[in-house]
Amino acid sequence: MSSYKAPLNDIRFALFDVIGADAEFERLGFDEASRDVVDAILDEAARFTETVLAPLNAVGDREGCTLDQASGDVTVPTGFKQAFDQFVDGGWTGLNSPPEFGGQGMPQTLGFPLKEMINSANLAWGNFPLLSHGATEALLHFGTDWQREAFLKPLVDGRWTGTMCLTEPHCGSDLGLLKTRAEPRADGTYAVTGTKIFITAGEHALTNNIVHLVLARLPDAPAGVKGISLFVVPKFKVGHHGTQGERNAVRCGSLEHKMGIHGSATCVMNFDGAEGYMVGDPNKGLVGMFAMMNSARLGVGLQGLGLSERAQQNALRYARERLQMRALSGPRFPDKPADPIIVHPDVRRMLLTCKALIEGGRVMSYHAGVQLDIARSSTDAAEREQADALAGFLTPIVKACLTEWGVECTYNALQCFGGHGYIAEHGMEQLARDARITTLYEGTTGIQALDLLGRKIMQLKGAGLRAFLAMVDRFCAENAGNAAVSEFIDPLRGQATQWQQLTQQIGQRAAANPDEVGAAAYDYLMYSGYVVLAYWWARSVAASEASSQSEAFKASKRETARFYFARLLPRTLAHAAAIESGAGTLTTLDADAFDA
Amino acid sequence: MSSYKAPLNDIRFALFDVIGADAEFERLGFDEASRDVVDAILDEAARFTETVLAPLNAVGDREGCTLDQASGDVTVPTGFKQAFDQFVDGGWTGLNSPPEFGGQGMPQTLGFPLKEMINSANLAWGNFPLLSHGATEALLHFGTDWQREAFLKPLVDGRWTGTMCLTEPHCGSDLGLLKTRAEPRADGTYAVTGTKIFITAGEHALTNNIVHLVLARLPDAPAGVKGISLFVVPKFKVGHHGTQGERNAVRCGSLEHKMGIHGSATCVMNFDGAEGYMVGDPNKGLVGMFAMMNSARLGVGLQGLGLSERAQQNALRYARERLQMRALSGPRFPDKPADPIIVHPDVRRMLLTCKALIEGGRVMSYHAGVQLDIARSSTDAAEREQADALAGFLTPIVKACLTEWGVECTYNALQCFGGHGYIAEHGMEQLARDARITTLYEGTTGIQALDLLGRKIMQLKGAGLRAFLAMVDRFCAENAGNAAVSEFIDPLRGQATQWQQLTQQIGQRAAANPDEVGAAAYDYLMYSGYVVLAYWWARSVAASEASSQSEAFKASKRETARFYFARLLPRTLAHAAAIESGAGTLTTLDADAFDA
Repeated sequence: MSSYKAPLNDIRFALFDVIGADAEFERLGFDEASRDVVDAILDEAARFTETVLAPLNAVGDREGCTLDQASGDVTVPTGFKQAFDQFVDGGWTGLNSPPEFGGQGMPQTLGFPLKEMINSANLAWGNFPLLSHGATEALLHFGTDWQREAFLKPLVDGRWTGTMCLTEPHCGSDLGLLKTRAEPRADGTYAVTGTKIFITAGEHALTNNIVHLVLARLPDAPAGVKGISLFVVPKFKVGHHGTQGERNAVRCGSLEHKMGIHGSATCVMNFDGAEGYMVGDPNKGLVGMFAMMNSARLGVGLQGLGLSERAQQNALRYARERLQMRALSGPRFPDKPADPIIVHPDVRRMLLTCKALIEGGRVMSYHAGVQLDIARSSTDAAEREQADALAGFLTPIVKACLTEWGVECTYNALQCFGGHGYIAEHGMEQLARDARITTLYEGTTGIQALDLLGRKIMQLKGAGLRAFLAMVDRFCAENAGNAAVSEFIDPLRGQATQWQQLTQQIGQRAAANPDEVGAAAYDYLMYSGYVVLAYWWARSVAASEASSQSEAFKASKRETARFYFARLLPRTLAHAAAIESGAGTLTTLDADAFDA
Repeated sequence: MSSYKAPLNDIRFALFDVIGADAEFERLGFDEASRDVVDAILDEAARFTETVLAPLNAVGDREGCTLDQASGDVTVPTGFKQAFDQFVDGGWTGLNSPPEFGGQGMPQTLGFPLKEMINSANLAWGNFPLLSHGATEALLHFGTDWQREAFLKPLVDGRWTGTMCLTEPHCGSDLGLLKTRAEPRADGTYAVTGTKIFITAGEHALTNNIVHLVLARLPDAPAGVKGISLFVVPKFKVGHHGTQGERNAVRCGSLEHKMGIHGSATCVMNFDGAEGYMVGDPNKGLVGMFAMMNSARLGVGLQGLGLSERAQQNALRYARERLQMRALSGPRFPDKPADPIIVHPDVRRMLLTCKALIEGGRVMSYHAGVQLDIARSSTDAAEREQADALAGFLTPIVKACLTEWGVECTYNALQCFGGHGYIAEHGMEQLARDARITTLYEGTTGIQALDLLGRKIMQLKGAGLRAFLAMVDRFCAENAGNAAVSEFIDPLRGQATQWQQLTQQIGQRAAANPDEVGAAAYDYLMYSGYVVLAYWWARSVAASEASSQSEAFKASKRETARFYFARLLPRTLAHAAAIESGAGTLTTLDADAFDA
């Protein structure tokens, strides 16, 4: 079985030393989020995830969820309910929800290390509370007073959970095709009818009620994405004083048999004239959906990070224990029958790849969290706008890169175990199977790439990119004379320049041929992720040298940054070449000739 | 469920048009291997794998193998035994074994498309006959007359199967640590005692007997790899006239629960004073082991290829059927609710990546097969020696690259399905799980990399590399004026030059620091694989243009080659940068500081 210990020191380093989140919290008026309080929250999150959730990870994989076909009830794995109750009792569900709905009003940023730890400990379990946050966001911004009163409080205090019901059998990425209907009724409610698939936590007995946020079409809706409305459809109807009413006409029809995340209930949900209430304006459902989606996308990015962290911890332990062959440069432990495999450069390559992607990715994702707080809580409108652009720009990068890297890190960590990694009892293969969903759900990597390049760069004219490049410029200027990071400044500057050039080049080509966007998108996304990470690695070294961390810690950051710049950042060369080759290399071949 | 149709046209193109295997067979005196006969064999292999093996693939995954703890018997999935009987009746087990032991004496090369098709159809099933070939090789070259008489014939005709018993709980890559003992007995036999793990097809009821090839130590053996001997230990003892004797003291203690290849029996084998017979000389067991291992390594490379082919076929079908969103450059099928996803450049990127790696990898692996035939059957000693060097050089590249690419191709193919790829019923996730073993067993990618760089390049002074570079030079010289491939000649020449420079650079550094070999090995291996593939893609285009294939086929080869040179070959830039960064970026960080 794999084990997990929360990397609190590095989490704090990322949060406070690199990003300066404590100063940001103070500046933004989060009076409750003092360093002491935040430290205590992190300690308690570590305790809860290590001791309550982590031991249930293998249990969830082994047992999975089961559906009673007659009743439509879903049973979750042993221990999941008790853990959920403790989570609710600890007040975790409302950590960064507004106090007026029972939340603690802490910064969004704090939810990031919390989610990271949950996902390291037990990703499948973490999927049950995960989407409540998206539902909360949608209701908070677009719900009526009654909807907020009726649904928000129980979602915030964890008595109920939420879902996002978007996908249908014939439409996933293309929501414009969806068929679920919502017929208006005389009392102002809607009768929602249709089948939704891949509904995470669509049914379970962890809570008394489940709040489905459902995309559907009104009878007179225009075709495509401009005819989609958003509805809230509870499992049990809700009286006007919040009392629980009768069972609504929504049922789980089946559970999917999946490659991994067996402990997570992935449901086919059948709505059969279920009573629903419209959220926001008619035919404007996608706006509310994006409010949910961005939260969920960042959350999935943190799943990639969390799985990578756990995988790497176990690979590191194994690499120190497993004795196999001698170092090529001579025995390091002559008294042992062989050297531990961590002496072998190729094992170190795999471990350092994980370490560089994880620790850099941690800072990258937490920084996106800070942007959410600034965008919401800054008193300066221009600053809010820029933070919003930056968050929008970083969301597809965090989602896609941390999940692609999650696949890579769980691959490398498993590989360190040799054949033993393939055997279930070591727990490494579960992490690899669980990681495989993360590049698919909440928008595949290809969809993230289109969101980044097509929307955030082309449509929104790259405001987020410009804001990020300004950070790079400022850092390079401020650290020109800083011996601790001088080796990284020129490579970082060069990379930022090429990033701009590639962006312009794609823009020019896309003006003549829109396929250029789709053809460049994936490589542009990955290119961007590696440059963002290079920035954070340079800043991490600067922050580490200026910190009171141990000499070993400082050496660890310095050498990992060197490894990153020397051995991972050059992947941008391949991505740049692919971008520069243009769309023709992808689009010329006739679809029928692929297997000619 | 995923489906499979043998890509016979491309298999024939690779074999005959690109490599010219038919001319080679004739030149080497394989009178039976006329084009007609080979074509008939390929047709029949396609029929057998498509109709008998492919439908059992999901069955094997679902049912797995089961052990009766009391008897030690292993039950294989439904249909596996009947399929094995048909395989034996069809004479497949002895396809390229010597006629004097009942084989058909066909070229080794022919085993490559056969294995590819078996692995596409049902990799787990294919593991049962797979290792017989390795056992056959070891006995053929190192067995006594009696051993060859007693064991070879039933292995060749498929009445029995073979295993390779190398790994023990504390030693996998480092066989020098192995502890299994072989005590000589008065009658010249040995009592073999110890525990072997990860034994593929270690126990089953497909055949009446199982022939274990076991590495063990004699009582007076020196420590390390110089004290290992090879023994043949049958499940049932064998009388001097080949009669089946009493049960030997070797039993399956347990089956591993694995991420994939559930239909393959991965056994813990306990030898408890089992009667064994020494193969070859005392303490020289590794020589026999390598004879088995090289065959098995190429076979595992073909597993990566086979899985990739099946995955890609299904992704291509899905990409043509699944309607989702419009092409960015405007609707292609305005009469449909959306365009098929194959119009989207990023879906094409994933499909073309598979296509380029599979079709190029097919030629690369079959060409290695031809070297085995030349090394064995040429009348020219110098040619035999060169082919042997080339086969040795290509073996780690074929094994490691085709399996790493197998992981990538099954990843991409699954990704084309979006969330549906994660669901068991589509069969894509099984292919991804099955692929995950291939970079681990028969030597991890890291071990292949050390074999290539440490042994085939450094120790053997790069004879195989020189032979390959001579092929590249010859092709470039001969095609300097060939308009069909002129665009590829300069890039290929440049890449070959850099390959030599990197090789020299590593050699110079390694003289001062042996860790440089381990630090460069993985990136050097992948770099080499991409250059080898570039050569085969250029040659494939030349061969295609000169062939009587359809215009669509020619366009398909040309555009895929262009895609490969533009979008995949640039990965060598990243690998070269990693190599050039040297060992320091991997070795400087103290092992204790990884999680400081």
